[in-house]
Amino acid sequence: MITTDILIIGAGPTGLFTVFEAGLLKMRCHLIDALPQAGGQCSEIYPKKPIYDIPAYPEILAGDLTLKLMEQIKQFEPGFTLGERAETIEKQADETFVVTTNKGTKHHAKTVAIAGGLGSFEPRKPPILNISDFEDKGVEYIIRDPELYRNKKVVISGGGDSALDWAIFLTDVAAEVTLIHRRNEFRGALDSVDKVQELKDAGKIIMITPAEVKGILGTDKVTGVAVIRDGGEEFTIVTDHFIPLFGLSPKLGPIANWGLEIEKNAIKVNNALDYQTNIPGIYAIGDVNTYPGKLKLILCGFHEATLMCQSVYKRIFPDKKYVMKYTTVGGVDGFDGTRKEAPKAVVKKIE
Amino acid sequence: MITTDILIIGAGPTGLFTVFEAGLLKMRCHLIDALPQAGGQCSEIYPKKPIYDIPAYPEILAGDLTLKLMEQIKQFEPGFTLGERAETIEKQADETFVVTTNKGTKHHAKTVAIAGGLGSFEPRKPPILNISDFEDKGVEYIIRDPELYRNKKVVISGGGDSALDWAIFLTDVAAEVTLIHRRNEFRGALDSVDKVQELKDAGKIIMITPAEVKGILGTDKVTGVAVIRDGGEEFTIVTDHFIPLFGLSPKLGPIANWGLEIEKNAIKVNNALDYQTNIPGIYAIGDVNTYPGKLKLILCGFHEATLMCQSVYKRIFPDKKYVMKYTTVGGVDGFDGTRKEAPKAVVKKIE
Repeated sequence: MITTDILIIGAGPTGLFTVFEAGLLKMRCHLIDALPQAGGQCSEIYPKKPIYDIPAYPEILAGDLTLKLMEQIKQFEPGFTLGERAETIEKQADETFVVTTNKGTKHHAKTVAIAGGLGSFEPRKPPILNISDFEDKGVEYIIRDPELYRNKKVVISGGGDSALDWAIFLTDVAAEVTLIHRRNEFRGALDSVDKVQELKDAGKIIMITPAEVKGILGTDKVTGVAVIRDGGEEFTIVTDHFIPLFGLSPKLGPIANWGLEIEKNAIKVNNALDYQTNIPGIYAIGDVNTYPGKLKLILCGFHEATLMCQSVYKRIFPDKKYVMKYTTVGGVDGFDGTRKEAPKAVVKKIE
Repeated sequence: MITTDILIIGAGPTGLFTVFEAGLLKMRCHLIDALPQAGGQCSEIYPKKPIYDIPAYPEILAGDLTLKLMEQIKQFEPGFTLGERAETIEKQADETFVVTTNKGTKHHAKTVAIAGGLGSFEPRKPPILNISDFEDKGVEYIIRDPELYRNKKVVISGGGDSALDWAIFLTDVAAEVTLIHRRNEFRGALDSVDKVQELKDAGKIIMITPAEVKGILGTDKVTGVAVIRDGGEEFTIVTDHFIPLFGLSPKLGPIANWGLEIEKNAIKVNNALDYQTNIPGIYAIGDVNTYPGKLKLILCGFHEATLMCQSVYKRIFPDKKYVMKYTTVGGVDGFDGTRKEAPKAVVKKIE
């Protein structure tokens, strides 16, 4: 059982920054995310796209925003359960919570902060009848660990950035990379499209377009895929993996059944105080919550996380009185023993 | 008469970021600040000190935070009335406002956003009887324009960072720099203390310690100061300027008389919606406001400014429906004709 002070559901920017604000208050955090890495949408959907409205960053790439936040919270040693989706929650007699993921990992926490963004990202699946039989048996909708494909044959399907970028990346890892798309045209960053063209010309990516994967071959695991060309020609390809990358779409998912007050697919919170939900001890911050005047902006999530941490502190330490100290004045003491602080003024004689 | 959509009282980080969020909504801003430059406390009080809790900045110097914000808002061409204090406000028949400064500058705005931080910074004045007679006639408590001292004799009084840093700076500008302090010890950054020692040794700063300025000489302008040494010895120094740098202390000031609901030296606002005060059309954001759970943090000011701008938009354009667009998707169109936008995806054939 993983134990922590604040269990954060969602490791996007809001969830990550929560670790910092909680750390200043000496509270530990653990994050659960369905995606295989931290950063939420910023890392998974648009890591190379610029954001212009992060305060004091005239421009920052979404992927870099994640890196900066990870650097900022490192000293507070957050724990991560990645690639798993928070599934059930049980309130304990002592007002703490146990949250279990779809893979059975259990987390015990004094408080839960839902920072789930637009929801957990679920892959769009191609309409292939028996595809669910092969999930995690050679069919993967998200690439969690590229090493899985070392010296294997892979077929990637899709025509966007994800398909292009992973096809490029896997040429250095896999034994054979085939890219199948139902059009001749790909939609993505110019660099990526050009690179795939180059790798195709060099014989490192096998391109089959316009075509679609129509079936999966194999018994207990994938051994091949059945392909149909635009003109109607059908044939099979021997492969160890079939990776359909047709995009992710966010779903509130199991959280919707936790007894929380939901409005327009978002969780209602008390914005007049601390962003707590209708269940005491469960908070919702960032894009996942709603209140009058709500804006789904990263900078709003930062504020919500910060005010929430003060409320959590009072909940966890009802008898302690906290006096806020500015980081410039008080410094930052990490759980890892590091300390950051402003250079001290000296008092020195001039003679 | 200066006219604008949002008149922002206070050019600290919250006031500055307001310009960006307002600009995204096509509203123009003008800022008034009692200090001679933008940035508020960050620029005037602790520009060289690190802040650790600006989201996605593991560390940023307060002065650099100001520079980044100025860069971020440049495209929205904010106007500035600096070195003047907002003194009076008059609500017009059409629900707009006229704000006049202590120097008589008039500003006409559709909305007023008070982002005044802890208040306008008032200098601590030394207890010299006739000092007020010489203000702006050779006595300055804040250095607004160093060029005023070009080839003049100046006497600086004080023992902190301000006194040290300006003494250093003015050795390159003034004809003669004298530094008077009531102790032999100075309190400031080690670098600054050492540099002053060096300039003293080189004969570029005349040091008189421990001593105090007891009187000011002159008729219509400063011609000298009367000094008393710790031991009791008295003498006069011929000078064109006397600059006592004994620190600044924030005062809510004239805003306290604007009819706003004040609690604990801060302005009460509606945090459940839009940070509006009890006077419709006047908002208060950042450290100057108060509400249940309020934290006087820069990152909270950013959020408050952002939500406020949405409310201001509805006030100014009651008939327009605004649909929020993410900057990553919609880009940023400056009032100066510039446009920032994410590189577009291409749709390109691979053959």
